[in-house]
Amino acid sequence: MTPRAPTILQCPVPLDDADRVLLGHGSGGRLSAQLLARHFLPQFDNPALAALGDASVIATPAAELAVSTDSFVVHPVEFPGGNIGTLAVNGTLNDVAMMGARPICLTAGFVLEEGLSFAVLDRVIAEMARAALAAGVAIVAGDTKVVGRGQADGLYINTTGLGAVDPAFRPAPSRTQAGDAILISGPVARHGMAIMAAREGLALESAITSDTACLLPLVDALRPLGSAVHALRDPTRGGVASALNEIAAASRVEVEIVEGAVPVPGDVAAACEVLGLDPLFVANEGVMVVFVADNASDSALQIMRAHPLGAAAARIGRVLDAHPGMVAMRTALGSTRIVDLLPGDQLPRIC
Amino acid sequence: MTPRAPTILQCPVPLDDADRVLLGHGSGGRLSAQLLARHFLPQFDNPALAALGDASVIATPAAELAVSTDSFVVHPVEFPGGNIGTLAVNGTLNDVAMMGARPICLTAGFVLEEGLSFAVLDRVIAEMARAALAAGVAIVAGDTKVVGRGQADGLYINTTGLGAVDPAFRPAPSRTQAGDAILISGPVARHGMAIMAAREGLALESAITSDTACLLPLVDALRPLGSAVHALRDPTRGGVASALNEIAAASRVEVEIVEGAVPVPGDVAAACEVLGLDPLFVANEGVMVVFVADNASDSALQIMRAHPLGAAAARIGRVLDAHPGMVAMRTALGSTRIVDLLPGDQLPRIC
Repeated sequence: MTPRAPTILQCPVPLDDADRVLLGHGSGGRLSAQLLARHFLPQFDNPALAALGDASVIATPAAELAVSTDSFVVHPVEFPGGNIGTLAVNGTLNDVAMMGARPICLTAGFVLEEGLSFAVLDRVIAEMARAALAAGVAIVAGDTKVVGRGQADGLYINTTGLGAVDPAFRPAPSRTQAGDAILISGPVARHGMAIMAAREGLALESAITSDTACLLPLVDALRPLGSAVHALRDPTRGGVASALNEIAAASRVEVEIVEGAVPVPGDVAAACEVLGLDPLFVANEGVMVVFVADNASDSALQIMRAHPLGAAAARIGRVLDAHPGMVAMRTALGSTRIVDLLPGDQLPRIC
Repeated sequence: MTPRAPTILQCPVPLDDADRVLLGHGSGGRLSAQLLARHFLPQFDNPALAALGDASVIATPAAELAVSTDSFVVHPVEFPGGNIGTLAVNGTLNDVAMMGARPICLTAGFVLEEGLSFAVLDRVIAEMARAALAAGVAIVAGDTKVVGRGQADGLYINTTGLGAVDPAFRPAPSRTQAGDAILISGPVARHGMAIMAAREGLALESAITSDTACLLPLVDALRPLGSAVHALRDPTRGGVASALNEIAAASRVEVEIVEGAVPVPGDVAAACEVLGLDPLFVANEGVMVVFVADNASDSALQIMRAHPLGAAAARIGRVLDAHPGMVAMRTALGSTRIVDLLPGDQLPRIC
């Protein structure tokens, strides 16, 4: 019998040139510092972040701030039209924009799964930096945590956005009133169907891409209409139907939409039909619903159609005072059906 | 052969009185609305949140804001001394406080794992509400997402905090200078050892509890010292050693601490010794390191000791200009050893 080599007790020393995220990257030690220095700071470079304080200091240009937070868990992390980073930046900027506010800055918190490839992480970070730059907004504070394999699914991102409230332009969910026209900025259901196709590996005839976009330019274009714009909402999770229900409830009004008036791209409509999904409940990431005083609605439509993001803008309905909190759809046959919230979900982890 | 009952195709309708989180709670539909109305809004009640806009509107009392974001993934979710909700509120408020800022508000983003019991979630939410109330800060915006079983571990929370910068009190990691005294507000390593004991089921002689606390009252007590306070840092992940290294690097100074000067509770020291851990690298959640001009250091110590959170405050070292970026420990024998960042981690998912 040959003698066994002696057992040497040793802790595994993390490689510092790994191509994947290690638990040690979440330690607060040397690997954490490397993760920041190599992957995040070069992309998100700005003076507030570079100070590496416990908090970043920013100037406040307004007396009132709009604050919004959103966590993103979309699966798959990368999909036609963008990735989780695109959503995380555009989604939160859109929430700030829906209040009429001008975005000031973003923060980003990451939960990374051990084993996530740096190739994927770097693409996500690059896309966040690109989207933030396009919107002219810096990511001023960040945080990274690492959890073990099987304790996340790739990565999750939280973004929080701050915006300067514009005293002359303050749309809010509760400001809709009977008589308002309801407009939509573009065709619906693209994001949800792009995710579903990517997830299920559906071979659709045409590749459906997510509509993810920053709606800020479109909001800025509507700004001159001032107080005639009563409410803005981007119909993400839960789709247009849920957004309309939320506004109807917040303003205690009835919302009536016309069947067929909500634009749905042909390939998206076909995919929805095959899968038995109602496009009104499918998520969007670059569309907004506009509640506007009727006498300003033609102007609003014209303004939106002049912008690439709103080229297919359409009038989809009106606000009534008959049944507060209800969303109704007038069908082609002249009858009316209620458009309710879905009890559960059509598709989890859509954003 | 008896005829089979006809197969009825049906989607499972989610129960709306479940005692656990369902995927449908993340849908943006009726269950999402219920999750908010039943579990979150009653606890986090405040006008900004109740408006349920895409973003919340808050007044800004200062020309400059401190912004900090932090994600919390601690395992186990509940531990002696607190839960993930306590950490999520105190941790982010402390980051804002370390800049000398007065907290204005918090946001909270939740990633919930399908199957999480509402009993646990409700305790976490209640603890967040309690900690926020104690600090006098409202949670003005929130978001919830649900991921499938095995795609998270119970729940993760991101909190983002805003604070009003105090022009007369602006400690920063880069403002430390040679000659400064280094103080610590209390005994170290309690949080990390409490988590380790809870996680590994260690039967220690005494129950070690986390030190999680909001440091704001202690920071407010130091405020009258004004510009004499150069830097504050709460040594969380990576412990006191990492915090000192970060300050030494940011200010391009040498930090010298004295062996034995950093207070460690007896039971914590004993547990560290058994497990082979260095308390200087173990996480804290209610302790801060203070870099202060030497001529104000006695006042600072006296002020901290007068407050329950700082009763055991101690002088632990001084700032030199010999080796910029280095942290050294003067040993009892008169020699010096370097206190470096750990390459990886002692304990993952500590906060």
